[in-house]
Amino acid sequence: MTKKFVYSFKEGEAKMKELLGGKGANLAEMTKIGIPVPPGFTLTTEACQDFYNDGQNKISDAIIEEYRLHIKDLEEMMGKKLGDNDDPLLLSVRSGAAVSMPGMMDTVLNLGLNDDSVKGIISKTGNERFGYDSYRRFIQMFGNVVMDIEGSVFEKELEIVKEEKGVEIDTDLTASDLQVVIEKYKVAIQKVAGKLFPQDPFEQLKMSIEAVFGSWNNDRAILYRKLNSLKGLAGTAVNVQVMVFGNKGDTSGTGVCFTRNPSTGENKFYGEYLMNAQGEDVVAGIRTPLEIVTLKDQNEAIYNELVSYRDGLEKHYTDMQDMEFTIEEGKLWMLQTRGGKRTAAAAVTMAVEMFNEGLIDKDTALLRVEPAQLDQLLHPHLDPKAEKEVTALGTGLPASPGAAVGTIVFDAHLAHDRNEAGEKVILVRNETSPEDLIGMNASQGILTARGGMTSHAAVVARGMGKCCVAGCSTAKINESEGTLTFGGKVYKEGDYITLNGSNGNVYEGSVPVSEPELSGDFGTLMEWADERKEMIVKTNADTPHDTATAIKFGAEGIGLCRTEHMFFEASRIKAVREMIVAKDTENRKIALAKIEPFQQEDFEGMFKELAGKPMIIRLLDPPLHEFLPQAEKDIEGVAAEINVTVKELKETIESLHEFNPMLGFRGCRLGVVYPEISAMQARAIFKAALNVKGSKPWIEVPLTGKVEEYMIIKKIIENVAEELDATDKVDFKIGTMIEVPRAALTADEFATECDFLSFGTNDLTQMTCGFSRDDAGSFLGKYVDLGIYENDPFQTIDQEGVGKLMEHCIITSREVNPDIHIGICGEHGGDPESVEFCHCIGLDEVSCSPYRVPIARLAAAHAAIKYPYEEEENCGCGCDEEHDHKHDHKQEGGCCC
Amino acid sequence: MTKKFVYSFKEGEAKMKELLGGKGANLAEMTKIGIPVPPGFTLTTEACQDFYNDGQNKISDAIIEEYRLHIKDLEEMMGKKLGDNDDPLLLSVRSGAAVSMPGMMDTVLNLGLNDDSVKGIISKTGNERFGYDSYRRFIQMFGNVVMDIEGSVFEKELEIVKEEKGVEIDTDLTASDLQVVIEKYKVAIQKVAGKLFPQDPFEQLKMSIEAVFGSWNNDRAILYRKLNSLKGLAGTAVNVQVMVFGNKGDTSGTGVCFTRNPSTGENKFYGEYLMNAQGEDVVAGIRTPLEIVTLKDQNEAIYNELVSYRDGLEKHYTDMQDMEFTIEEGKLWMLQTRGGKRTAAAAVTMAVEMFNEGLIDKDTALLRVEPAQLDQLLHPHLDPKAEKEVTALGTGLPASPGAAVGTIVFDAHLAHDRNEAGEKVILVRNETSPEDLIGMNASQGILTARGGMTSHAAVVARGMGKCCVAGCSTAKINESEGTLTFGGKVYKEGDYITLNGSNGNVYEGSVPVSEPELSGDFGTLMEWADERKEMIVKTNADTPHDTATAIKFGAEGIGLCRTEHMFFEASRIKAVREMIVAKDTENRKIALAKIEPFQQEDFEGMFKELAGKPMIIRLLDPPLHEFLPQAEKDIEGVAAEINVTVKELKETIESLHEFNPMLGFRGCRLGVVYPEISAMQARAIFKAALNVKGSKPWIEVPLTGKVEEYMIIKKIIENVAEELDATDKVDFKIGTMIEVPRAALTADEFATECDFLSFGTNDLTQMTCGFSRDDAGSFLGKYVDLGIYENDPFQTIDQEGVGKLMEHCIITSREVNPDIHIGICGEHGGDPESVEFCHCIGLDEVSCSPYRVPIARLAAAHAAIKYPYEEEENCGCGCDEEHDHKHDHKQEGGCCC
Repeated sequence: MTKKFVYSFKEGEAKMKELLGGKGANLAEMTKIGIPVPPGFTLTTEACQDFYNDGQNKISDAIIEEYRLHIKDLEEMMGKKLGDNDDPLLLSVRSGAAVSMPGMMDTVLNLGLNDDSVKGIISKTGNERFGYDSYRRFIQMFGNVVMDIEGSVFEKELEIVKEEKGVEIDTDLTASDLQVVIEKYKVAIQKVAGKLFPQDPFEQLKMSIEAVFGSWNNDRAILYRKLNSLKGLAGTAVNVQVMVFGNKGDTSGTGVCFTRNPSTGENKFYGEYLMNAQGEDVVAGIRTPLEIVTLKDQNEAIYNELVSYRDGLEKHYTDMQDMEFTIEEGKLWMLQTRGGKRTAAAAVTMAVEMFNEGLIDKDTALLRVEPAQLDQLLHPHLDPKAEKEVTALGTGLPASPGAAVGTIVFDAHLAHDRNEAGEKVILVRNETSPEDLIGMNASQGILTARGGMTSHAAVVARGMGKCCVAGCSTAKINESEGTLTFGGKVYKEGDYITLNGSNGNVYEGSVPVSEPELSGDFGTLMEWADERKEMIVKTNADTPHDTATAIKFGAEGIGLCRTEHMFFEASRIKAVREMIVAKDTENRKIALAKIEPFQQEDFEGMFKELAGKPMIIRLLDPPLHEFLPQAEKDIEGVAAEINVTVKELKETIESLHEFNPMLGFRGCRLGVVYPEISAMQARAIFKAALNVKGSKPWIEVPLTGKVEEYMIIKKIIENVAEELDATDKVDFKIGTMIEVPRAALTADEFATECDFLSFGTNDLTQMTCGFSRDDAGSFLGKYVDLGIYENDPFQTIDQEGVGKLMEHCIITSREVNPDIHIGICGEHGGDPESVEFCHCIGLDEVSCSPYRVPIARLAAAHAAIKYPYEEEENCGCGCDEEHDHKHDHKQEGGCCC
Repeated sequence: MTKKFVYSFKEGEAKMKELLGGKGANLAEMTKIGIPVPPGFTLTTEACQDFYNDGQNKISDAIIEEYRLHIKDLEEMMGKKLGDNDDPLLLSVRSGAAVSMPGMMDTVLNLGLNDDSVKGIISKTGNERFGYDSYRRFIQMFGNVVMDIEGSVFEKELEIVKEEKGVEIDTDLTASDLQVVIEKYKVAIQKVAGKLFPQDPFEQLKMSIEAVFGSWNNDRAILYRKLNSLKGLAGTAVNVQVMVFGNKGDTSGTGVCFTRNPSTGENKFYGEYLMNAQGEDVVAGIRTPLEIVTLKDQNEAIYNELVSYRDGLEKHYTDMQDMEFTIEEGKLWMLQTRGGKRTAAAAVTMAVEMFNEGLIDKDTALLRVEPAQLDQLLHPHLDPKAEKEVTALGTGLPASPGAAVGTIVFDAHLAHDRNEAGEKVILVRNETSPEDLIGMNASQGILTARGGMTSHAAVVARGMGKCCVAGCSTAKINESEGTLTFGGKVYKEGDYITLNGSNGNVYEGSVPVSEPELSGDFGTLMEWADERKEMIVKTNADTPHDTATAIKFGAEGIGLCRTEHMFFEASRIKAVREMIVAKDTENRKIALAKIEPFQQEDFEGMFKELAGKPMIIRLLDPPLHEFLPQAEKDIEGVAAEINVTVKELKETIESLHEFNPMLGFRGCRLGVVYPEISAMQARAIFKAALNVKGSKPWIEVPLTGKVEEYMIIKKIIENVAEELDATDKVDFKIGTMIEVPRAALTADEFATECDFLSFGTNDLTQMTCGFSRDDAGSFLGKYVDLGIYENDPFQTIDQEGVGKLMEHCIITSREVNPDIHIGICGEHGGDPESVEFCHCIGLDEVSCSPYRVPIARLAAAHAAIKYPYEEEENCGCGCDEEHDHKHDHKQEGGCCC
């Protein structure tokens, strides 16, 4: 039997998403449950793979054969024929991958029209203007998306006719005007593309299908997949569907709606529509559409029918739906339904409310919120008081919540470049298109003058968690001249503006921002996440203030306190420098004695905030030269201050110079060569812990590669504990960071001597992959572009390389010490994909920056839901021994008993 | 049964070396085969471990009990009693580990003498002077080595008495003078040590034994073990033996001899002796001893007896022996025999001759020469013509062959410091002692004014393979004033001198040196090594000259040609710089086109020298900034030369600046970002290979971490091959260097795409251990001292860390590609211990610098002898398939069939 590449909507269902794409599967599902959908069929994602097979980039004859049979079905079903002169069948062609993906070629409408069949449609509808307008639109769309001719080519021709005819808006053009436009379009196509606009509807269809398949690998689609980390997709499907017309007059119309508010999550029907319009008129943001509730006034029966589909579809899919509909001469057709994109706030609210409504269970509720999305909620918003004091320049649609402050940029690439250079920018455009993705991603926020809540800018911004004010019609934007004008006041590139994406206001200059407050549904969801997750989530913090913030965000302790950050403060840097220039141990000890009380004070402050939660304290890590001045002008002052000659200080700086400081004299190497430094830090830690009851210091030795190094520092720490009578009085642990590949390779040696291990995945990635984070800029971008690395390995753990080393470390450590506590404190600890990996390889904890703690908590819950430890299957020992099954199952070979 | 800690000489044998130490086992063996050895017993190395148990550092009562029984035996056997007033038993106490180890406490003689028993010895021998002299010597030796009092304390007392008595030499002191000396010694001991010289012989014995055990861990012994990489030894044994006296008058004497010449290997009895002397008089170099053949004139019977022992012992041990003997009143006693130390030349000659004599087999012959020793033969010697033209300042003993040129240094520590600073030095001393080890190791050569061919300086220098002229009595050395005087001409610290260790001559200034010629026995041995070794030995070379040198030394090809070395030559650096500052691909290609002919020419030259042997050519590796000037004054000139402004050049330099260049934009990253560079190099290689028939280029992609990077460069190379029609015409391979840990971790992915892999263990060590070779100086020395690393991991592969990664790489690569060729080209390729490791983990080849090729060949043969692949045991398949069993057995799981 040959493979089936084409499915009628009557043959598919929702769960065939991989094969039919999201759109096709949902059209089939709606057809199946009796919702009125214009008939059609789907070319599968496997047909897309077939298209790319052997690099030929064409549809095989067998597939053409197959879909022609379906066309015949449609012709029979509708009693119309493709290209018919009397009553032609018209089709839409749409892309649709398993995951919704702006950036691909989307839609061709009115396919089947040509110089002959346009007469058929006119004779059938009796509407000459409609006929020629449909044909004109089809040629334009086909020329643009299928024949790859820039939209401006057609716009120019249209403008010429409008000028000749002296009309202002498209709708004022008569049928014969449009016939002129059609001829001009055809000439333009031949001129630009070098070939004729195809008159044969089957040729039109084949070219459209090939264009959709071809768009799967255009730059925008690839960029979108990269930005959204979409991997492993087979390709796009193509949906061919009988056209229905929303632009057949005042009893026709079209709209986009959501079963709940995608911005706030409120359980209220939400959407926009336009009468006498085609679908793209709503989403393209050219005309400003009407709120969906007003449809009730226009046509109550249709409205009620739509509401019944809204209720039915949400219940059927148990999720908020994003739907498209068209009313053709009073008949409602549903053109699409899919899970709706939503802001983080909406996602949280919907998840909690749908659980409360009994629609979904807790696990589903948790999975409904993407961890990375929470970033939106955790980012600052405009300070309400400050906002009251300023007057808005204008107000647009609150398209994506949050606040953004930055300098105006009118070009997407410039936005990207400025951002790379460290500038915070706001992308200001009349409207955005997929070409602007790169700039949107690089901006703090987006302001558009045109388009609604479902415009490109709004949808993409919400997905990115960027603040967006859309359709701000009072803003006059001249992109080529680089001006933004609000009522005569002109702002130029580089001027500061502030956006409030939650109310749509735009302000001059920088308005102060304030911290988000998290409560209500967010708090509920986070509680559920904590119940479900199996890893401990801690934070990386070096100050009492950061500690307090992180605890507010749910941190269960500190996973990394970098003690050297305390060394840089003005009050202590002098003593640190004296320590560095000390000529012998005695003088070094004198300087260290000055630093000790500061360190102790720091630790006491943090222990107090932690109130009994554990804190991993890493001993001094960076190379000493980082504490010394480098600029000629600073050296003199510092030399005087610490009472050495300029020459001596320069000699010290010279002697500390390193070719590769990352691989130099730092980490535990400092403590091995100068044991008094480690001893001072241990003393400060224990004294602080003795002063703050219940403190739990976990002392961490950095940059170990051989267990012998660790043992030297461990001994120093234990001796200090002894000396201060802290051995029994303080609940402390000693462990090491795993950041040198050698340590990971020999982890079993460390494990017998360590209470805990913590992966420093930043350095571990640098050494394992052999590139310095500071220097990789010159090639890593190219590497990610070329697909050598799928992700920046400093953002998401390189699972196949660094991850392999981590797994080896975990398995071999637990073999010798099943009770060892293993975590991660690199920046990967706040990256959802990495958190999932950490769960899967059996880590006990992750630690990340305070603002990413909720993300890590939710990501850990997701991981636990998706990848449960299979206790029963691996073990089933039924023994009553008090041992930790979780740990045992992380070991190779299963249970310990 | 309790453990036996003490063995009589009658109870042991040679193969009990681990337990009895080398000296003890050989004394037992000689006793066993009927050679006259003064009776005695050995405290085992396990007794030494017991001594150190729980850090108590004392002999247990049980062991004292045990050896006292053996004393009783000796007393009965000799009919004498320890401490007896009439005829006291006197003992020697000597250390003796399994491996001979200067640096430990060596010997206490005449033990058992005290104020009473000295009278017994006098009454027994009737020689008062002998009695008091023996007692005086004993107190001095005991005070020095057991009670740790500096030798100068006793020398001072002796000088005082000699002055008082107006005598010049010790032997002129009378018995009553010596009684005065004895009293002065006892007072001095009490003053310096704070306790009395012990009169009780059992106390003397216990203290001596404890001193020997204690000396196992003194600084010198530890340093010696470190310098000689001696690991895993249990401790030292202690030999307690009845004293025989070589200083009982003219019918007594003592000597040291070798069964063959330890310097040249000549099969001729060789040694030195002194009549009326104790053993240390010979080795200490105070009196200049006589050649052994002259003993024949003195006492032919004794000489013949000695020669018979010489013949018997060499035949018994089948190796050259280093023997000590004493003649007591006309009776010959053998005090020691052991495998003799020898120069490399002697080792080679003896090994080949002993095989020819049928004494040993080929494997034994190969194992008789330490690979590292060959360095001596491979180092330059004085140019014979140049030497003829200069007059020697003086001539000493040719104690260790070779030549040395350097500046005079009189202090061992200063020698070390100067050497560290890059200066080549000659250590000049009256005589050396174990304290001087550090300085000897740091010197080019050693010159002493006193001592013979078996003096400390001579023995140690031969072991180190350092040139040494010993006993140069015409040299007047004043160490404290820092002068070396030859007949009135004074040389000071920092003046240049030249030594010829093969003839004993000393020259003023620097005499030109010339290359060694290898032939004769050396050639024979190397042929045997090649027959026996299983790994291919290649060389690292970048020029036709180095290639020729290496081939002369037996290299089987080039294992690493660093193409960038060619870029630095004056004729091409300009084009290289133009390439770097090029603003776009087009200009980069123009510059590259200028470099290409040079590269092609380089490769052609090397291909010609190789005459069909393969050459691994590494594509450009270093960061580009290495090719640009850094100093302000150079920048202007270079800018003018390559026709850019100073500003532009500075910007380029600035843009190429890296924080950690080792982990920066280099290696294959250059080729990924600028494919035209790799293409140019590939073009030069293929054009050269097409021009020189039979060329076998193996093109190597450096610094890969992900197989995707490799594939990009591989494709470039293949395309160039195609373009030049070389695909079938050139016998080439493509592979990668394994130097990034990630590559080793994912080697299976590389292995399916690579013809060969080559470990770059320098970078692999840097990244795996996390320290930069250039920067590790600030701590690595301390690390080796503290024993954190046993060896500098840049000299000897860190087997437990880096080695683990290598093994993983080899096993997983061969699983997917059993035919893959795997080698090593880091500097470890010339380190014998690392070569052995490479053999054991199944490498196909090692590559090293030209001068180390013979060392690697011999080391590879040693490894093959010591660690044969166990074909039969793993396989025994008996199949007739043509498959490579060696490869199969390297795979986990054994044979493929």
